[in-house]
Amino acid sequence: MYVLYKQAFKFNHLNAMGSFNNLSAVFVNCTLKKSPQKSHTERLMRVAQQIMHKEGVRLDLIRLVDHKVPPGVFPDMTEKGWEEDEWPTLFERIIKADILVIGSPIWLGQKSSVAQKLIERLYAMSDKTNEKGQYIYYGKVGGCIITGNEDGVKHCGMSILYSLQHLGYVIPPQADAGWLGEIGPGPSYGDTEWEGKKLDKPVGFDHEFTNRNTTFMAYNVMHLAEILKQIGGLPAYGNSRDQWEDGKRWGFQKPQTS
Amino acid sequence: MYVLYKQAFKFNHLNAMGSFNNLSAVFVNCTLKKSPQKSHTERLMRVAQQIMHKEGVRLDLIRLVDHKVPPGVFPDMTEKGWEEDEWPTLFERIIKADILVIGSPIWLGQKSSVAQKLIERLYAMSDKTNEKGQYIYYGKVGGCIITGNEDGVKHCGMSILYSLQHLGYVIPPQADAGWLGEIGPGPSYGDTEWEGKKLDKPVGFDHEFTNRNTTFMAYNVMHLAEILKQIGGLPAYGNSRDQWEDGKRWGFQKPQTS
Amino acid sequence: MYVLYKQAFKFNHLNAMGSFNNLSAVFVNCTLKKSPQKSHTERLMRVAQQIMHKEGVRLDLIRLVDHKVPPGVFPDMTEKGWEEDEWPTLFERIIKADILVIGSPIWLGQKSSVAQKLIERLYAMSDKTNEKGQYIYYGKVGGCIITGNEDGVKHCGMSILYSLQHLGYVIPPQADAGWLGEIGPGPSYGDTEWEGKKLDKPVGFDHEFTNRNTTFMAYNVMHLAEILKQIGGLPAYGNSRDQWEDGKRWGFQKPQTS
Amino acid sequence: MYVLYKQAFKFNHLNAMGSFNNLSAVFVNCTLKKSPQKSHTERLMRVAQQIMHKEGVRLDLIRLVDHKVPPGVFPDMTEKGWEEDEWPTLFERIIKADILVIGSPIWLGQKSSVAQKLIERLYAMSDKTNEKGQYIYYGKVGGCIITGNEDGVKHCGMSILYSLQHLGYVIPPQADAGWLGEIGPGPSYGDTEWEGKKLDKPVGFDHEFTNRNTTFMAYNVMHLAEILKQIGGLPAYGNSRDQWEDGKRWGFQKPQTS
Repeated sequence: MYVLYKQAFKFNHLNAMGSFNNLSAVFVNCTLKKSPQKSHTERLMRVAQQIMHKEGVRLDLIRLVDHKVPPGVFPDMTEKGWEEDEWPTLFERIIKADILVIGSPIWLGQKSSVAQKLIERLYAMSDKTNEKGQYIYYGKVGGCIITGNEDGVKHCGMSILYSLQHLGYVIPPQADAGWLGEIGPGPSYGDTEWEGKKLDKPVGFDHEFTNRNTTFMAYNVMHLAEILKQIGGLPAYGNSRDQWEDGKRWGFQKPQTS
Repeated sequence: MYVLYKQAFKFNHLNAMGSFNNLSAVFVNCTLKKSPQKSHTERLMRVAQQIMHKEGVRLDLIRLVDHKVPPGVFPDMTEKGWEEDEWPTLFERIIKADILVIGSPIWLGQKSSVAQKLIERLYAMSDKTNEKGQYIYYGKVGGCIITGNEDGVKHCGMSILYSLQHLGYVIPPQADAGWLGEIGPGPSYGDTEWEGKKLDKPVGFDHEFTNRNTTFMAYNVMHLAEILKQIGGLPAYGNSRDQWEDGKRWGFQKPQTS
Repeated sequence: MYVLYKQAFKFNHLNAMGSFNNLSAVFVNCTLKKSPQKSHTERLMRVAQQIMHKEGVRLDLIRLVDHKVPPGVFPDMTEKGWEEDEWPTLFERIIKADILVIGSPIWLGQKSSVAQKLIERLYAMSDKTNEKGQYIYYGKVGGCIITGNEDGVKHCGMSILYSLQHLGYVIPPQADAGWLGEIGPGPSYGDTEWEGKKLDKPVGFDHEFTNRNTTFMAYNVMHLAEILKQIGGLPAYGNSRDQWEDGKRWGFQKPQTS
Repeated sequence: MYVLYKQAFKFNHLNAMGSFNNLSAVFVNCTLKKSPQKSHTERLMRVAQQIMHKEGVRLDLIRLVDHKVPPGVFPDMTEKGWEEDEWPTLFERIIKADILVIGSPIWLGQKSSVAQKLIERLYAMSDKTNEKGQYIYYGKVGGCIITGNEDGVKHCGMSILYSLQHLGYVIPPQADAGWLGEIGPGPSYGDTEWEGKKLDKPVGFDHEFTNRNTTFMAYNVMHLAEILKQIGGLPAYGNSRDQWEDGKRWGFQKPQTS
């Protein structure tokens, strides 16, 4: 019998008393709007952040469009003809967090171009491995928050969560939360007026479904991150790229020709 | 401070010595082909199954198309005018497994109609909650295996994994594995001839990338399932639907109007 | 100069006086509900049908789930172990219509399993060519109508329209129409009560955006179908599969190696 | 009977003798690579361009990443805090062409961030209407070319073609062409070496399926553009936004409450 978890589970009963104050989370808002313009998506992201803050999680927030980050699939695009690239610094903030929550608006039913750029740049770092020889994002947890005025939370969630798991993030249950109005033009999350008319309250703030899903998303990313933290990340047995390249195959057997 | 994990982590050092022999997994093959026709997707599913078998996981395999399962979003479609419905029995096999791996072929770049039917029927049960008041699929782990002759592993994976996490499954890193040939018509996974010509070996069996990803997928669903099993499923703090409906809000606060 | 349209444009000024009464359209409703259960999607499909009816288009409506149509990618699945297959008859009704409008509900953000089955069966016929040697669906026009209670019109539209163009249908502008309510559980299109409460009018019937898009969709499929009808389908210069297989390449030149 | 096509069909028999030399096409390459780096996607786009050139179509090519175009959904982003925006000039080049072909690489199974940015900026202009009161893109024709090394042509095509039809472009049959290698890392379209090894010929250049689909795509966008040109664009009966806003409803009737 191989010893898999024995060392991995450095189970700290004190730390496990319930608080999440050993965790950190980075929220990356992929709005198309530069600061200080108001981002509807950020309003809902703040609801999740407030929960995490209350639970002791250290928070970071990046509005990607405020930074000079060229598109591309290399770690540093200044080596490919771009004058500036803040990605290396932003990547440090992202990779040190236990949790990554991507926020995106919806345009034509799809996540924003800024969200796709983020995924491309995250992917650009996927050559790296952690100290166990796993892909660099292993042991971390991802979620997303999507807002739009009419359609596409699930489609955008699908695309973002898929990318995150493909990179190595764990996706907890119900890791996508969002808000949408009825089909057609309409106010966006948090708007207090629409077509010149004052609304009696900010749109979506009282929405039971959105509030519940945002809460569940927030707790589920915390739970998984806490669990992985306590056991020292995902055990490397069977998923170490470095070891695979060295010829290790664990229980894998080639399918038989017959 | 609330006590979160203290009881949850009934950490059993002996059980954690590395074997996965307390786990069970159900593979649902969503091929369009009835038995005994050969399913390309099933060939690759068996590679993952063989790994799990070696690690002691109890395995079950359902070829959905072999069963009389009508489409629909109700637990038992005989109540909606269908003569037969084997779903209730199949659901028992699925819900008792710690791991669900969905296999699907690709048609026009999409998962099969049988895979979508499976998701609809799984969704039909999502009113149910577990003993913690969480959605019924909480605490379980999902993955997928996709094969096609030319295009769509990621797109199908996206759709299946999204659905699984939405229902309550945890999605581990790199939970999608598959095989694809070059664009255009061509042999499918495991084929030994194409257009009347004998091939020197079954297509894809030696494919390093497919074999590695299948291995990683298999181990990652086992790891997450084992971890969740050891800690008694996902802690219910912050994600119990029943408690939310009773008014419990944990750290959630309504966004402020100002 | 090759003569391309000279014969193709058998332009009939009388016929072109504005009526569409030489056209036929088949609507395939991919609801999961068997007749006589009410289909929300069918309610909106009927709005488009009423427009077409007024314009003189001959209409046919198929509710696919009412028919014994197995999944599969062969023209007749009784040759693959299924007892019954009504597809060959249904295909005749579909292929003789100038216009195909697919209706689908949304489940977990995706088109229904029945819609995917329809696409698989349509695809199964794509070996056939028309009298010009083009794929069998060339010269026809496609659109879709999607309803759900909260999310996914665009995503489902994307998938259905893509499949149709891939098969050979022309997709006119704004060929997708639909209705969605706010995010979360809620009434579906045409519902007159929700959670036991009577609503003052059927949901969505007055929705300006849905009504406009349904109207534009209906007219745009008619316009394109009428145009193609008048010119005898799509000219075959440059797109005949049969001619390509015979070695014809038109203006194509292999990319140069240098 | 209303008169629909009578004036619309200013059918010019001479012009219809077969040449497409009254047409113009703009190709927008959404590679992430700045010039003069080689774009694999552009190589395949040039195959389509060469066909169109031979048929007399005037061609324009934009590599979007070479231009200072911020993300956003406004016509000119310098009004929203960005220093420069070349979009207004680029839009002029796009809107005057009869045909728009979008090229995109694939990253994590999705179209590039640059392609999504293009769609956002095209969408930003959708308030505009043409002289018939239709959306500004009506009467034009769209297609796409996608390349990747392993997976995603259909998924990217789905997303791009959907967006184009939603904006008002007509999508002809089989309007997506592309190239993909086998799953996993590998050379991209046109590469002449891989992992340090010289290949005997550029990858994909001889690929029958890719060449055929690229040819069909090229001809089908030309055919539809030519047809629409000859009849003066899409007739406005039933699809004029301006007229709808003025209360015109054509054959539309509100669904009845009963």
